[in-house]
Amino acid sequence: MQTQILKFLKESEGYVSGEEISRRCGMSRAAIWKYMQELRQEGFDVVAVPHLGYKLVATPDKLLPSEIQHGLRTQYLGKKIIYEDTVPSTMDVAFRLGMEGAVEGTLVCAEGQTKGKGRLGRQWSSPKGKGIYMSVVLRPSLPLTEVAQLTLLAAVAVCEAVRRVSSVEARIKWPNDILVENRKLAGILTELSAETDRVRFVVIGIGINVNTSVSVLPPQATSLKEEAQKKMSRVELLQEILLELETWYERLKKQGFAPVVERWKELSSTLGKRVRLVDPGGEVEGEAVDLDKTGALMIRNDAGLIVSKIAGDVVQVR
Amino acid sequence: MQTQILKFLKESEGYVSGEEISRRCGMSRAAIWKYMQELRQEGFDVVAVPHLGYKLVATPDKLLPSEIQHGLRTQYLGKKIIYEDTVPSTMDVAFRLGMEGAVEGTLVCAEGQTKGKGRLGRQWSSPKGKGIYMSVVLRPSLPLTEVAQLTLLAAVAVCEAVRRVSSVEARIKWPNDILVENRKLAGILTELSAETDRVRFVVIGIGINVNTSVSVLPPQATSLKEEAQKKMSRVELLQEILLELETWYERLKKQGFAPVVERWKELSSTLGKRVRLVDPGGEVEGEAVDLDKTGALMIRNDAGLIVSKIAGDVVQVR
Repeated sequence: MQTQILKFLKESEGYVSGEEISRRCGMSRAAIWKYMQELRQEGFDVVAVPHLGYKLVATPDKLLPSEIQHGLRTQYLGKKIIYEDTVPSTMDVAFRLGMEGAVEGTLVCAEGQTKGKGRLGRQWSSPKGKGIYMSVVLRPSLPLTEVAQLTLLAAVAVCEAVRRVSSVEARIKWPNDILVENRKLAGILTELSAETDRVRFVVIGIGINVNTSVSVLPPQATSLKEEAQKKMSRVELLQEILLELETWYERLKKQGFAPVVERWKELSSTLGKRVRLVDPGGEVEGEAVDLDKTGALMIRNDAGLIVSKIAGDVVQVR
Repeated sequence: MQTQILKFLKESEGYVSGEEISRRCGMSRAAIWKYMQELRQEGFDVVAVPHLGYKLVATPDKLLPSEIQHGLRTQYLGKKIIYEDTVPSTMDVAFRLGMEGAVEGTLVCAEGQTKGKGRLGRQWSSPKGKGIYMSVVLRPSLPLTEVAQLTLLAAVAVCEAVRRVSSVEARIKWPNDILVENRKLAGILTELSAETDRVRFVVIGIGINVNTSVSVLPPQATSLKEEAQKKMSRVELLQEILLELETWYERLKKQGFAPVVERWKELSSTLGKRVRLVDPGGEVEGEAVDLDKTGALMIRNDAGLIVSKIAGDVVQVR
């Protein structure tokens, strides 16, 4: 109901009388007054003028579900949203929801995280109210061996969304970091629960430094505000990410992984560079020449031999 | 302490005086008396005769941790045991423990399950006190693409253990059912939690019809009691399974997957047969000719083409 009133206020120019809201939303004047109080408590600036009615002057800078869903153009991503002020990690919330049977497309987002997770057990710096910290539950019919594809897909989606919303030239560092000129803007983490025969669910986690001051970020990190030199709407970016993610996910289902690989290559900051890749099996150094059809990075070492790696840490050298 | 007293009783021939137990275990006579009461409540038949002492006459037919650990020859598998009378599913208990950081080798076993899980969302019939229903938490350093190997490894371990303990000629139906002449004796289910870069933990679940009457089992199922025409010790079989599982797991770490594949082939009931394999991608019918090095089943279809499948349901035809 609150969402409905909010939608109505947003779509109205100027003041709307309580009488009209009452008629359109089918509720009493007293109930409307109560909802307006609630909206104000959430940070919406609603002005009430006798004989004129209500007017929405400003929306809060928060990732509220009502804000995210207003104008969201997805079919199922983000149709169910769990929003929290602060959580240890949106990954853990989403994973638990996945275990409990959450529907595909369920979104968990938070204003801040106290134990934000990065790849390989690392931390993700998550200052409150500044970034996007989100996790999405998907239930793909993919064999276990192809789940890594979703990580590359998510990188493409985030990169596209950032570029569309901000015009910052974001690029992908293999496998799934989003960089702006070698400084990290966003990270993606994919967790899953599976039997060997089938994936039960996947949680894709995305962390983006949006309006974060670089002074509170780790070295080598940047934010959209830093790069674009202006504050960005987190809601707008989140909506765009959901849309890109759903679009690429549907494309994967219909056309397979090839279009993802193709777009990934265009957006890559890794290919063509000299890199060192470290994984539990050891180290490879050489030129990153291509991405194979499973998403593995192909490195040509100094002996001219091509080595394919599906996981590991890449450092760009020289 | 109870385990220590039990061990002492088991290793003694004839009666042991309270005084001697008191000295050897370092506890008061009153405390010993209390422990004996507890043992009796668990089903141990402990006889006490004045001036002679205590004697263990019979152990209960239960999968008690003290019984399992007595004489267990593993290094770490089953060193920590969670034992339950009845649970919905040992898989769910073990998975939750895995999430909470349970050490590698943690064993969950139960006398009965109300929602025993089979592959692909199926049920596993788990009548109380008759079968072995166990789940083991492992933390392998395997990439996601190689986890299926553990399922084949578990099938080899269970098959070996059954053969050693019972002399029943158990065989493996791809990927991981244990059969005796086409009737199902045991099933294996592997679940996991992972990031795309690393496996966090794997839960291997094993269900075996041991002393189960075939009348309460699904059609096409059999039990060890039925095949061997005598009641078997569930504890002894479980100990043997833990030992085989650890032995093969250590072999995998040191020598890779090849020895598992080799032994799997020798124990297979599938290779050389005409089969139909069904998976989400469709159906393949032909001769099961080999297992490739990833554990995929290679089927030569009627056009002479070889198709490899890493997952799916196999039906033996004709």
